[in-house]
Amino acid sequence: MNAEIIAVGTELLLGQIVNSNAQFLSNHLAEIGVDVFRHTAVGDNADRLLQVIKEAEKRADLLIFTGGLGPTKDDLTKETIANHVKKQLIYDEEALESIQIFFEKTKLKMTENNKKQALVMEDSTVLPNRNGMAPGMFLKTETNSYMLLPGPPKEMQPMFLSFGKPLLMQLIGQVEKIESKVLRFFGIGESQLETDLEDLILLQNNPTIAPLAGDGEVTIRITAKNSPNAKAEDLIQRVEEKIMERVGSYFYGYDQSSIMEEMVKLLKEQKKTIACAESLTGGLFQSELTSFSGTSEIFKGGIVCYSNKVKEQILGVANETLHTFGAVSEQCAKELAENVMTQFGTDYGISFTGVAGPDSLEGKKPGTVWIGLAEKGSETKAFLLQLVGSRNGIRKRTVKYGCHYVLQLL
Amino acid sequence: MNAEIIAVGTELLLGQIVNSNAQFLSNHLAEIGVDVFRHTAVGDNADRLLQVIKEAEKRADLLIFTGGLGPTKDDLTKETIANHVKKQLIYDEEALESIQIFFEKTKLKMTENNKKQALVMEDSTVLPNRNGMAPGMFLKTETNSYMLLPGPPKEMQPMFLSFGKPLLMQLIGQVEKIESKVLRFFGIGESQLETDLEDLILLQNNPTIAPLAGDGEVTIRITAKNSPNAKAEDLIQRVEEKIMERVGSYFYGYDQSSIMEEMVKLLKEQKKTIACAESLTGGLFQSELTSFSGTSEIFKGGIVCYSNKVKEQILGVANETLHTFGAVSEQCAKELAENVMTQFGTDYGISFTGVAGPDSLEGKKPGTVWIGLAEKGSETKAFLLQLVGSRNGIRKRTVKYGCHYVLQLL
Repeated sequence: MNAEIIAVGTELLLGQIVNSNAQFLSNHLAEIGVDVFRHTAVGDNADRLLQVIKEAEKRADLLIFTGGLGPTKDDLTKETIANHVKKQLIYDEEALESIQIFFEKTKLKMTENNKKQALVMEDSTVLPNRNGMAPGMFLKTETNSYMLLPGPPKEMQPMFLSFGKPLLMQLIGQVEKIESKVLRFFGIGESQLETDLEDLILLQNNPTIAPLAGDGEVTIRITAKNSPNAKAEDLIQRVEEKIMERVGSYFYGYDQSSIMEEMVKLLKEQKKTIACAESLTGGLFQSELTSFSGTSEIFKGGIVCYSNKVKEQILGVANETLHTFGAVSEQCAKELAENVMTQFGTDYGISFTGVAGPDSLEGKKPGTVWIGLAEKGSETKAFLLQLVGSRNGIRKRTVKYGCHYVLQLL
Repeated sequence: MNAEIIAVGTELLLGQIVNSNAQFLSNHLAEIGVDVFRHTAVGDNADRLLQVIKEAEKRADLLIFTGGLGPTKDDLTKETIANHVKKQLIYDEEALESIQIFFEKTKLKMTENNKKQALVMEDSTVLPNRNGMAPGMFLKTETNSYMLLPGPPKEMQPMFLSFGKPLLMQLIGQVEKIESKVLRFFGIGESQLETDLEDLILLQNNPTIAPLAGDGEVTIRITAKNSPNAKAEDLIQRVEEKIMERVGSYFYGYDQSSIMEEMVKLLKEQKKTIACAESLTGGLFQSELTSFSGTSEIFKGGIVCYSNKVKEQILGVANETLHTFGAVSEQCAKELAENVMTQFGTDYGISFTGVAGPDSLEGKKPGTVWIGLAEKGSETKAFLLQLVGSRNGIRKRTVKYGCHYVLQLL
C-alpha cells in the first residue's frame, strides 16, 4: 500500500504554520510499512483541492487529508471529497452529541456552523474526535481509500493513533511488517556518534541505522524487516547490543521518551523527592517536570529566583557569595541547591543559574551555566556548561543537562 | 507571479524531519506578493521528482526547490532539473574555492563528491552559500523560473534572505504589493468570531479576511492589494476599524505577538512588578514570562507550590482554607496571589490552582481552574475557568488566561 498526504489550508501556503502533521503521519505510516511518496499542501480552494485529489488518486492507493474540517466557510475538505466521490453528507448522531456536550461544558455559545461539523460522508467509518469537534472519516471506494483528519495536531494525533492507524493496520493485514526502535542519547554530538558507529552504519541494510540530531540530543532509529533467517525484533536486538557496547554510556531511553520522563520515572521508582531553584531557566525545569501526571509523589515545589534579592532573601544565599562570586557561580549554584532542598525537605535539590543572553552578565558570556545538585548526606556538586545558541535554546538544553545529572546520580 | 515550493528528500517522507523550509519561504513570498498555490515534498527519486516538476511547470511561474544539493548519490535535484531544461553542469570557481577553504579550515579530508557540490547549471545565477558548501542557483527559461536552494535551514534561510529574495523582488519589479496584518484575539471562539463578522467576511475580496483558530486563540489575517482608489494600508485600516468595533474587546495584539509578550510589554511600560504562585501550571507561567529577555525589571521570582504543604508552609495559605475549601478554590487562589505578592514585595500577585487531569481532585473535574489576582491596595479577584482538553492543553490555556486577566487590569 502506498499513500500521499494532502494538507488543506491557506495558512500553510502563507507560512503561518508548519505542516507538522505530514511529519507525524509519515513517521507512523513508515512504521506500519505504508510507503509515502508525496506530501502536498494546498489552500482552502475547492478547485485546486479537487485537482490535487484527481492527480493523487492516479498514483496512490490511500489519500490522507489533514485540515479543512472546521466550522467556517473556508473549511471545505469533506464537501469537496464527498462531491467528488458522489457521497451524501449526513449527520452523525454521536458527533453531534459530543459537540453539544462540549458547548455545555465550556458554557460557550453554540452557533449554526458548529453543527456543520457533525456532518459525515455516508458509507464512511467515523473516527471520533476526543479533543475537538470535527470527527474524522475513512472511506474505501473501488479504486482508492480516503482518510480525513482534522488539522489541529492536538486533535489529529490522538485520533490517528486511536482510530486511524489501527484501521489501516487492519486493512493492510498480512503485509511485511517493519519493526523500528529509537534509541535516545544525550551528551554526545551527532558526528561523534556517527564516527563511533561508522562501520555499523555503512553495513546497514537490514536493519538500517539512521542517526538524527535535534535539540541537543541524538537519536538512532533502527529499522528491520523479517528476514528468512531471523525475526525483525531479533535483528534489531543484535544491532542494539552492538551500539550499546560502544555508546551506551550516553543512552537514556527509547522511542518517544524524553530525558525528563526518564528522570521522573527513576525518581518514582526510587521514591525520592526533588526541589528546584531556578534563575536562568525561570520555571522551565519545574514546568516540564509537572507536565507529566502523577509527579506529586516526587515533586512538592520550588522557587523561581530570578533576581538576586530573591536568591538572598527567599533562598538564603549568602550576601557575600553574590558579592564575591556573583549569581552565576559555582558557589551560588551550590547554595541554591542545598537551601532549596532544606527548605522543601526533599532528598535532592537542583539549581540553575547562568546567562541566557542576549547580553553578558557579571562579565560572563551568554551560555555560561552553573547547575547545582545537592543530595541529602552527600557533598553538593556543581557543573559548568558553556552552551551556544539562542536564549531559549540555552534554557531548554540547560534543563536537559539538569535531568542528565540527576539521572547519573540515581 | 505565482510559485510552488518543492522539497526534495526521502527523510521528509519518512517523517524524520518537518518541512519548515516551506513555511519559511511561504512567509517571505507572501510578503513580497508572490502567491504560493502548492507545497510538495517528494523523495530522492529522479523519476518522481521529474513528474512533480512537469506538473508544477504547467501551473506555476516560479518553482522553488529545497534540498537534494548535497554531496551524496541520492542528492539529485540539480542533475534532474539540468537534464530536464537541457543545461550543462559546469564548475563554479567561487563555489569550488569556498569548498576548499572549508576543508582547510576544518582539517577534514575533501572527497571527490564534495567537488560535485561546486557544479552549477550553465546560464544560471549562482546564489552563494555562506553557511555550507552547496551553492544555490536561479535559472529563468522562456516559460518558467527555477530557484534551487539547499535543504538545511541554517544554509537555506540566509541564502534566500541575502540572494534569493532580493533577486525575486527585482524580477517582479513593479507588481502590485500585497500588505497583510494579523489581529490576535483571546477569549472568543472561532465560530463565534466568524458569526460576529460574517457579513464582513462574505464581502471579502480586497481586503480578504481570514480567521484562524489555534491553541485557545483566534487570529484574523487581513490581506489587501493597492486598488485604483486606495492604498492597501488604508483598505486594511478601514476593515480593521470595523472588526474592532464588533470584537475589539477580545483583541490583544498584532502579527507575531503573543498574549504573554503583550502582558510583559504593558508591565514594563507601567513599571509594575509581578510575582507568581503556581500549582497547576507548575512553573509554566514564569518560564514563559522569562523566555523574553529583559524581564528582570518586572519579574523577580515566584513559587511553584505543587503540594498543599508548600502552599501552607512556604506560601502561608491558612490550614483552614485548605481544609474547608480545598486547594482548588476561590479562597486558596486569592490567598496564594496575595501572599506571593507580599512575600516578593511586588505590585501584583497572580496564582494558578486547578485540576490538570487526567484524574479528578477534591471532587473537582479536570479543567477546573482558579486564577487569583492580587493588586496592591485593591481587592483581590479570582476567576473560575472550566477548560477541556489534554493535561498540557489545559495548563497552556490557563497561562494565557492569566495574561488575559492581567492585561484587563493594566
